[in-house]
Amino acid sequence: MSIETTTPTDLESAATLSEEEIFASHQGGKLSIASTVPLATKRDLSIAYTPGVAQVSRAIHADPKLAKTLTWAERLVVVVSDGTAVLGLGDIGPSASLPVMEGKSALFKAFGDLDSIPLVLNTTDVDEIVETLVRLRPSFGAVNLEDVSAPRCFELEEKLIEALDCPVMHDDQHGTAVVVLAALTGAAKVTERELTGLRIVVSGAGAAGVAVAEILLAAGIEDVVVLDSRGVIVKDRADIAANPDSKKAELAQKSNPRALSGGPAEALLGADVFIGVSSSQLAEEHLKLMNHSSIVFALSNPDPEVLPEVASKYAAVVATGRSDFPNQINNVLAFPGIFRGALDAGARRITPAMKLAAARAIAELAEPELSADYIVPSPLDPRVAPAVSAAVAAAVTE
Amino acid sequence: MSIETTTPTDLESAATLSEEEIFASHQGGKLSIASTVPLATKRDLSIAYTPGVAQVSRAIHADPKLAKTLTWAERLVVVVSDGTAVLGLGDIGPSASLPVMEGKSALFKAFGDLDSIPLVLNTTDVDEIVETLVRLRPSFGAVNLEDVSAPRCFELEEKLIEALDCPVMHDDQHGTAVVVLAALTGAAKVTERELTGLRIVVSGAGAAGVAVAEILLAAGIEDVVVLDSRGVIVKDRADIAANPDSKKAELAQKSNPRALSGGPAEALLGADVFIGVSSSQLAEEHLKLMNHSSIVFALSNPDPEVLPEVASKYAAVVATGRSDFPNQINNVLAFPGIFRGALDAGARRITPAMKLAAARAIAELAEPELSADYIVPSPLDPRVAPAVSAAVAAAVTE
Repeated sequence: MSIETTTPTDLESAATLSEEEIFASHQGGKLSIASTVPLATKRDLSIAYTPGVAQVSRAIHADPKLAKTLTWAERLVVVVSDGTAVLGLGDIGPSASLPVMEGKSALFKAFGDLDSIPLVLNTTDVDEIVETLVRLRPSFGAVNLEDVSAPRCFELEEKLIEALDCPVMHDDQHGTAVVVLAALTGAAKVTERELTGLRIVVSGAGAAGVAVAEILLAAGIEDVVVLDSRGVIVKDRADIAANPDSKKAELAQKSNPRALSGGPAEALLGADVFIGVSSSQLAEEHLKLMNHSSIVFALSNPDPEVLPEVASKYAAVVATGRSDFPNQINNVLAFPGIFRGALDAGARRITPAMKLAAARAIAELAEPELSADYIVPSPLDPRVAPAVSAAVAAAVTE
Repeated sequence: MSIETTTPTDLESAATLSEEEIFASHQGGKLSIASTVPLATKRDLSIAYTPGVAQVSRAIHADPKLAKTLTWAERLVVVVSDGTAVLGLGDIGPSASLPVMEGKSALFKAFGDLDSIPLVLNTTDVDEIVETLVRLRPSFGAVNLEDVSAPRCFELEEKLIEALDCPVMHDDQHGTAVVVLAALTGAAKVTERELTGLRIVVSGAGAAGVAVAEILLAAGIEDVVVLDSRGVIVKDRADIAANPDSKKAELAQKSNPRALSGGPAEALLGADVFIGVSSSQLAEEHLKLMNHSSIVFALSNPDPEVLPEVASKYAAVVATGRSDFPNQINNVLAFPGIFRGALDAGARRITPAMKLAAARAIAELAEPELSADYIVPSPLDPRVAPAVSAAVAAAVTE
């Protein structure tokens, strides 16, 4: 479902990856704990453990705010999943999702210098997941939700934000959305258009599709049309009218200002931008209907909605989730810096303003060298996380 | 309450520890996460994250047993506390307990080479704690309960053992008990007596006292008498008869074979061994009542039930929890090796046989150099954890 979950796909390197090599690197898992203090002498033990630690515990008991600096918790991100929407594999359960979560924790460390632990749950009940994290609240400083199926993920994120006094973000939604907006900012400049004037079609109304549409609207773009498997999302579509409290109904209220109905053909006629975040295909005949100098983000993995060599026949800028094509849209550009910035600033929540700031920071890094083949920095660009975290921290208001 | 929680106390070094030094070493907490795989190139990402990780997740989904080797979870110990009985500080809550739990995780790494994370809970409800860990079960491989108040700790440990298919141990109970039995084995040899023939008084019927009494009985020692603040624990004592389902009533059934009643004087008359695991004092007049060549373990911290210089006037062997006296009884001798051995052997539970094996292994290491001042190895002796873990693993039968 999510974009990031199946990136960076690198067909070239993936083709040369042997099963042995992959399994060997996963033996014993991918994370390790280290003590940041020495424990070699009795004196060391007296400082890090008893009796020294009692002074620290007593100090926190007297002034709970001290837990922020005297424990690891307030800078610890928990990567939480119930394993219901893992990579392209679907509902494979918590144990099988754990290697992905370990990888995510490893990325938090490598790119955001944030400590992080995976917590995988063998319940899929939204309220039970919330309750579990509420009980564990003193153990961590932020929650990265991962690979939770839609539409449960929307309710889960909302309830967690309500229940926890710390940053919570479902990365499959918002990490994706931030990077898409950053890339679109670059693509608009390359094609010499105003971002806010773009006509955009988002294909997919799962976790990523909904969040992408929302951030585009938040960025001031008005003409956003979302497609799901039944066609254009519009208020009077039967299934949407029948579920007025659903995320899709909410989307129908906010998007599709020209009240389009129909399928991909109707949506794409004259569109400037196609953003694919579902596994559906984009037919060449529909591509042809788009505006000249169009922008195509075919982000499904491992198989993009349309291959770049086909899309390039019509589009001026093409991006995918894959590392073997130019313009790789990869969540790792966003989530390490977003959490790092939120925690640096002591943020209570990750707000739309912080997400917009993150997207802007990513886009600005690409700007000096902007071209049709370079609309976002590389996922490995070491400038990205510090720039994002600084921008996010500066946007914190609560 | 627990012994270990306030050891190693090192009066000498503690006296030279400045508050600044202690607080400086706790800045940002004492734990750090590291990735065990490289993440510097796109190829690295393709192995550790997508697309490579999908093969690993798929393999675990197909064969759940593979989670034991392809994730970190099955060798990960969670150090769980609700902060209700922390060090000598009492019920200071989960946040203030976290520095202690971080220290414990650091010790697991340093001595058992086991990864470990602290989970502190802001509920003190036994069933809620059990439920929380059941939900998180796919995330870890063993549970070290820590600093949970008695008598809740007994119920909590029992329910967790029932609910989880992995090793669970409340260290304040059983880690303490194992080291006490090891030390007593050495002390009996030094004083040339049979372990099983000893007359023993355990002062304290909290987490440590109950577990110490139980392991002594399991080791074949028959004459064990337990004292609490109301005196000798005996079946017909009013408060015990009134609570027939309590841990103390259970203890009254199993211990005190001579059906003693009264207080310390009645209990200590002719006793060979005093084991103090409460904060009560041992009066010199009571010490005098003990058998010749007696053994005194005054394990309260930072203030032992009786100071070694006083106890030595009467006793042949004296031990404390402190590192500034000979014979330091410290849980770190036991828990890293017990968990390591249980996990190495894939044990479902930590059984009495495994605890007895751990005590024997510790005692055997001290044996070649046994003396009145050396009845257990030093907490920093690097031979201990490997010996304990091998012995524990060999004792695993389920």
